[in-house]
Amino acid sequence: MVPSDLDGLAKEIGAKTFACDASKRTDVEKLFADLDGSFGAPEIVVFNPSYRTRGPVAELDPAEVEKSLMVSAFGGFLVAQQAIRRMLPKKSGCIVFTGASASVKGYAQSAPFAMGKFALRGLAQSMARELHPQGIHVAHVIIDGGIKSERRQEQSGKTASLLEPDAIAATYLSVIRQPQSAWSHEVELRPWVESF
Amino acid sequence: MVPSDLDGLAKEIGAKTFACDASKRTDVEKLFADLDGSFGAPEIVVFNPSYRTRGPVAELDPAEVEKSLMVSAFGGFLVAQQAIRRMLPKKSGCIVFTGASASVKGYAQSAPFAMGKFALRGLAQSMARELHPQGIHVAHVIIDGGIKSERRQEQSGKTASLLEPDAIAATYLSVIRQPQSAWSHEVELRPWVESF
Amino acid sequence: MVPSDLDGLAKEIGAKTFACDASKRTDVEKLFADLDGSFGAPEIVVFNPSYRTRGPVAELDPAEVEKSLMVSAFGGFLVAQQAIRRMLPKKSGCIVFTGASASVKGYAQSAPFAMGKFALRGLAQSMARELHPQGIHVAHVIIDGGIKSERRQEQSGKTASLLEPDAIAATYLSVIRQPQSAWSHEVELRPWVESF
Amino acid sequence: MVPSDLDGLAKEIGAKTFACDASKRTDVEKLFADLDGSFGAPEIVVFNPSYRTRGPVAELDPAEVEKSLMVSAFGGFLVAQQAIRRMLPKKSGCIVFTGASASVKGYAQSAPFAMGKFALRGLAQSMARELHPQGIHVAHVIIDGGIKSERRQEQSGKTASLLEPDAIAATYLSVIRQPQSAWSHEVELRPWVESF
Repeated sequence: MVPSDLDGLAKEIGAKTFACDASKRTDVEKLFADLDGSFGAPEIVVFNPSYRTRGPVAELDPAEVEKSLMVSAFGGFLVAQQAIRRMLPKKSGCIVFTGASASVKGYAQSAPFAMGKFALRGLAQSMARELHPQGIHVAHVIIDGGIKSERRQEQSGKTASLLEPDAIAATYLSVIRQPQSAWSHEVELRPWVESF
Repeated sequence: MVPSDLDGLAKEIGAKTFACDASKRTDVEKLFADLDGSFGAPEIVVFNPSYRTRGPVAELDPAEVEKSLMVSAFGGFLVAQQAIRRMLPKKSGCIVFTGASASVKGYAQSAPFAMGKFALRGLAQSMARELHPQGIHVAHVIIDGGIKSERRQEQSGKTASLLEPDAIAATYLSVIRQPQSAWSHEVELRPWVESF
Repeated sequence: MVPSDLDGLAKEIGAKTFACDASKRTDVEKLFADLDGSFGAPEIVVFNPSYRTRGPVAELDPAEVEKSLMVSAFGGFLVAQQAIRRMLPKKSGCIVFTGASASVKGYAQSAPFAMGKFALRGLAQSMARELHPQGIHVAHVIIDGGIKSERRQEQSGKTASLLEPDAIAATYLSVIRQPQSAWSHEVELRPWVESF
Repeated sequence: MVPSDLDGLAKEIGAKTFACDASKRTDVEKLFADLDGSFGAPEIVVFNPSYRTRGPVAELDPAEVEKSLMVSAFGGFLVAQQAIRRMLPKKSGCIVFTGASASVKGYAQSAPFAMGKFALRGLAQSMARELHPQGIHVAHVIIDGGIKSERRQEQSGKTASLLEPDAIAATYLSVIRQPQSAWSHEVELRPWVESF
């Protein structure tokens, strides 16, 4: 099911939404087949999904750890594979993977998220080395901080330390539009007041 | 099944071997239960297993990619979880994860190995931050090069660029024996002639 | 002396040029005093200078190594210090340091360049942590490849592997314009065909 | 002048001490000339010196920043150059550079230390890539924490978070003794309770 909190945005910008469990091969294949019919080969693919669970390593549920790897990393592979099969014939396209602070630092009590996000970064790096010379831009954006949303603002009461979605989108767009003589592979984004 | 090429070594040093599919929760739980009966709680656990497949991302078999994540990273979690449950009551012990060049660099045509080894490094880092203050040493050793073996020497004909198993073991032992006032978390090992 | 190959560009865009030895404190202080009179406090400062010499460590001229540190790193500090003294009262401004592949990897036969560029990166990181919360954006852009110029094209004959100056400028501008809720500190740029 | 607090240790282990300002070319050349007469070519050289000053970048004294680069980084080059000129003819030897947390992370209010230690790491990496294939081992040890001493214990009152000098020495020795088929270039050491 598509999260209902996307409805408003989709209506505003005239976007069409599709539900998909990114960790399921058949789901991802069906999504891309559906897109083929509606839109043709994609030019830009952004992979955001992740799943995480927290706690001491001794107490984690192995099924939850497996799910973290499957959604955050294996899902990234499944989506990227479908995407580049459609981009390679045109020798162009851009794939953006959304990372997190946990992509480069394994925090205590958060091993499953680190495992998934580290693995996704390994995929992104390997793909950049393979696919850049074939005309496909692969970027990995590390979002280092919380993202502003109505829900989160109500929870925390403070907003100065949250990333504005529009500000994130502006950088995604500028990376996507980079000419091929000067591509960024890894980009980090954090609020001015975030400690790092 | 235990690989038969371990038989000679096991006999030489009086070691007992156990077969285990590290990616299977029940296998790993049974292994540790068996060890409990024979030896009691482990003081040192070294996790080596990995699985890899090579090729362009567009052509990889998703089942093989999943297996890479399961053996190299999820297996590391399963083994580490069983190990620390037995180490935490004693507030001591050492877990060593074996990494590779692919732990820190995603090479072209080798995304599955990068995904598995990056994820294992994320696990190791997160565990170090959680468990060091509880008296359990967590180390991640990056082996940057091929390891000498009879098979490999016959294949390549050259040996100067291979790591000697005894030399690797010497560093593992020195890390394991570090007093807790000066622990290494990440260590790299490469032959003198290896380019990096 | 201002390099004469800037004359054409300066005329084209109506820029005013100033000569300055960035490694000399008095030179840098005079430059900023001159700018104060002509333009007021700077909003954007980009630091590009570097000096390098190559060769085996045993044969390097110590005076050349010292010069590499002074121009590439100490010069960055001198310029940054003058810049932020003028930016802090306004709690805004952006400083961009230009790095290189050598900022993150010390290549053989190129120790002086690595020393200067590593040091500049240390300065940039430290400044980002200090100054971001004060409203001043500090970015470090790693240019991983050669930059296209008439001279370089004649030398090498190939251009696909060179970065276009306009493409570099586009990314510098997009970083400078980032809203403060989503700032990049480190950005890398390389041609699509560059191996890394 | 040799710090007098080395007198006791020198007497205990029968060591001979020499005074040297590592940032001065003539001083370093004289030191090695003196050592040539007393001991012959060195087999092991450890470079520890560093100089730091703290404060906001806007308020730092440029002379102090320059001194940080000269002692921590240029001094490392001067000593290493003299050392390898004596080691290369024998195609053996080991040089260890002592780094700090600041070698890999530029902390706020501590730009000069980051500049010096980053630069020293760049030198060490470049030397490893050049000299390992010539039989000379170059290691960079990152000491992440305070080192226990009488003075420091009195100041802080707590010792669990300090590195024991003997524990540091044990790891330095094990790195120095690594056979050339499995050399570590970078090693980190921190107390078990240190957060990182």
